[in-house]
Amino acid sequence: MRVNNQPMRTIWVSAYGKVAIIDQTALPHSLEIKEISTLDQMIVAIKTMQVRGAPLIGAAGAYGLVLALQQDSSNMAMQTAAEALCASRPTAVNLAWAVNRMVNLLMPVPQFDRARLSWSLAEEIADEDVGLNKAIGQHGASLIAALHAKKKSTINILTHCNAGWLATVDWGTALSPIYTAFDAGIPIHVWVDETRPRNQGAALTAWELKQHGVNHTIIADNAGGHLMQHGLVDMVIVGSDRVTRTGDVCNKIGTYLKALAAQDNRVPFYAAVPGPTIDWSMENGLTEIPIELRDEDEVHFIQGLNAMGEISSVRLTPLDCKASNPAFDVTPANLVTGIITEKGVFSPEQLKQYWEVSSHP
Amino acid sequence: MRVNNQPMRTIWVSAYGKVAIIDQTALPHSLEIKEISTLDQMIVAIKTMQVRGAPLIGAAGAYGLVLALQQDSSNMAMQTAAEALCASRPTAVNLAWAVNRMVNLLMPVPQFDRARLSWSLAEEIADEDVGLNKAIGQHGASLIAALHAKKKSTINILTHCNAGWLATVDWGTALSPIYTAFDAGIPIHVWVDETRPRNQGAALTAWELKQHGVNHTIIADNAGGHLMQHGLVDMVIVGSDRVTRTGDVCNKIGTYLKALAAQDNRVPFYAAVPGPTIDWSMENGLTEIPIELRDEDEVHFIQGLNAMGEISSVRLTPLDCKASNPAFDVTPANLVTGIITEKGVFSPEQLKQYWEVSSHP
Repeated sequence: MRVNNQPMRTIWVSAYGKVAIIDQTALPHSLEIKEISTLDQMIVAIKTMQVRGAPLIGAAGAYGLVLALQQDSSNMAMQTAAEALCASRPTAVNLAWAVNRMVNLLMPVPQFDRARLSWSLAEEIADEDVGLNKAIGQHGASLIAALHAKKKSTINILTHCNAGWLATVDWGTALSPIYTAFDAGIPIHVWVDETRPRNQGAALTAWELKQHGVNHTIIADNAGGHLMQHGLVDMVIVGSDRVTRTGDVCNKIGTYLKALAAQDNRVPFYAAVPGPTIDWSMENGLTEIPIELRDEDEVHFIQGLNAMGEISSVRLTPLDCKASNPAFDVTPANLVTGIITEKGVFSPEQLKQYWEVSSHP
Repeated sequence: MRVNNQPMRTIWVSAYGKVAIIDQTALPHSLEIKEISTLDQMIVAIKTMQVRGAPLIGAAGAYGLVLALQQDSSNMAMQTAAEALCASRPTAVNLAWAVNRMVNLLMPVPQFDRARLSWSLAEEIADEDVGLNKAIGQHGASLIAALHAKKKSTINILTHCNAGWLATVDWGTALSPIYTAFDAGIPIHVWVDETRPRNQGAALTAWELKQHGVNHTIIADNAGGHLMQHGLVDMVIVGSDRVTRTGDVCNKIGTYLKALAAQDNRVPFYAAVPGPTIDWSMENGLTEIPIELRDEDEVHFIQGLNAMGEISSVRLTPLDCKASNPAFDVTPANLVTGIITEKGVFSPEQLKQYWEVSSHP
């Protein structure tokens, strides 16, 4: 999408042997492009969330493997690199999906040709993501258009965390329908959950909506239920790191609370995901999806711009107090109106039927 | 309760003509005592939340009126002061209750005697609050003891915002049962919602629990639903700024979301309040309780301790983005297990019956 009126992706090949990323930890206060030239640098970028968002992590994983192969393209090196990449964010199914696809395609290739070929395979993964997200945008925009045809005034959409183009290679998942509908002239206002503890909503979603000109308001994560009680939310759209074949939605911690409020107030609740995010092997999201417990310092400390205009970190909690930091939660399918995918919008029930008629969708 | 092993209240008469308060905006990083000697200073202290929490605001309002009367004890001055105090936090029913009680008792008193007499009337309000909270603690502790008798291991209690002794004159409302049960030897662990945007949980609840030695863990407001899904919460206790006669609970923004999650996971949800917080004139919390919309800068900026050990404010959001900041929400009675008061624990149904048999409880 556009940054300072220039088109940009979140990850691209900057020069032979190097990959460029937007360092998302510096947003929204400064736009910093980072060059990544080794596997270890890519693992750090994934772990510290310089790149984040399920689809972007997939592409980053693919390019991470490419960088590893430039050093050593043996079977063992490739396998070791793949395992290290997958372990860097265990909750993200796209990461394992992209890395395994690379490995499966490269394993039969003669060792001397792997390093060269891997570049185009990773590029394919990135381009495919852009295509999927565009299609998600079109299917989701139809839902928004239908609401607008009924309401005939601004459609208020609540979103949690960042599932915008910054979370993908381009377009985004949850925000792709919003950009598509906005570009088609439908009046839209977005309630942006700040999304503690890492504030991806306040920092990233607000930043990218502003760059694209979409009207929006940042709120504390606590506010969404109150807004829904008062008829100020027409629709919730979130992304997801993993959807089970039964329609359980694993997404950023706090999503479940918004889904409960949406149901209590008859607000439709959608998750927008590309196909690879649906984990057809999983039946029960609550018991089967491993939830990453992140560093408690993410709760204790927060980063922002100080009075001197510098990025600065402050401690919020008393010294010596403990914090707990589960990064995701699971929204059970009974709270989910639909899953917006590149192939259309499916209710959890339809997803289940799709699974039943096709053992390998 | 105890601070650095010394007993302390949140508001007290420091010298003739002056009232002392703990400046709660400096907590948890530093303990600062502030002397208040005029009505205007007290209004600022209430508005800027140096004193906060429904019962403490009531006592602060009473002392604010006392300070006004030291300057001018005419009917008109008293009335003007009362109105200014009530307007400083319009959502807090205790404030109006305490100020009106003072005015009603002082109006028949000869003007020359009002300034002197008002000191003991305000002290009565403060002492009554302490008595009410102790009784709330005993009734609430019985609920905790019953859970412990069944579970026979640590009871995990989630609380939102700060309804501890810092929110009252002493003991607290939501935390009073916790202190009482803890002192009786029941093993307790408290999940402390940080409570964005003002972080009263992370700053105040964590601080006072630590001072008293109660085991606790700070969490982002987003985490509570996930913890309940996994059986890690046995009970929710919150305070309230206003409870309707039907049992609707108005409390800090985000409370409603926790109540929804509690119901979805069969976790009992209680609000602990002194009698004056029940507004018998109100039937429907959602339509009748005015919700304060606070300054959006409370969402944009956050305060904490920087690397130099100084209190510092940082901006979280992109420049020129809008934020919205509703301060309270209403939890409908159907999500409330019971209201813990100084007279016992009442279900919303019992509260309604109590109202029906007594026109002026």
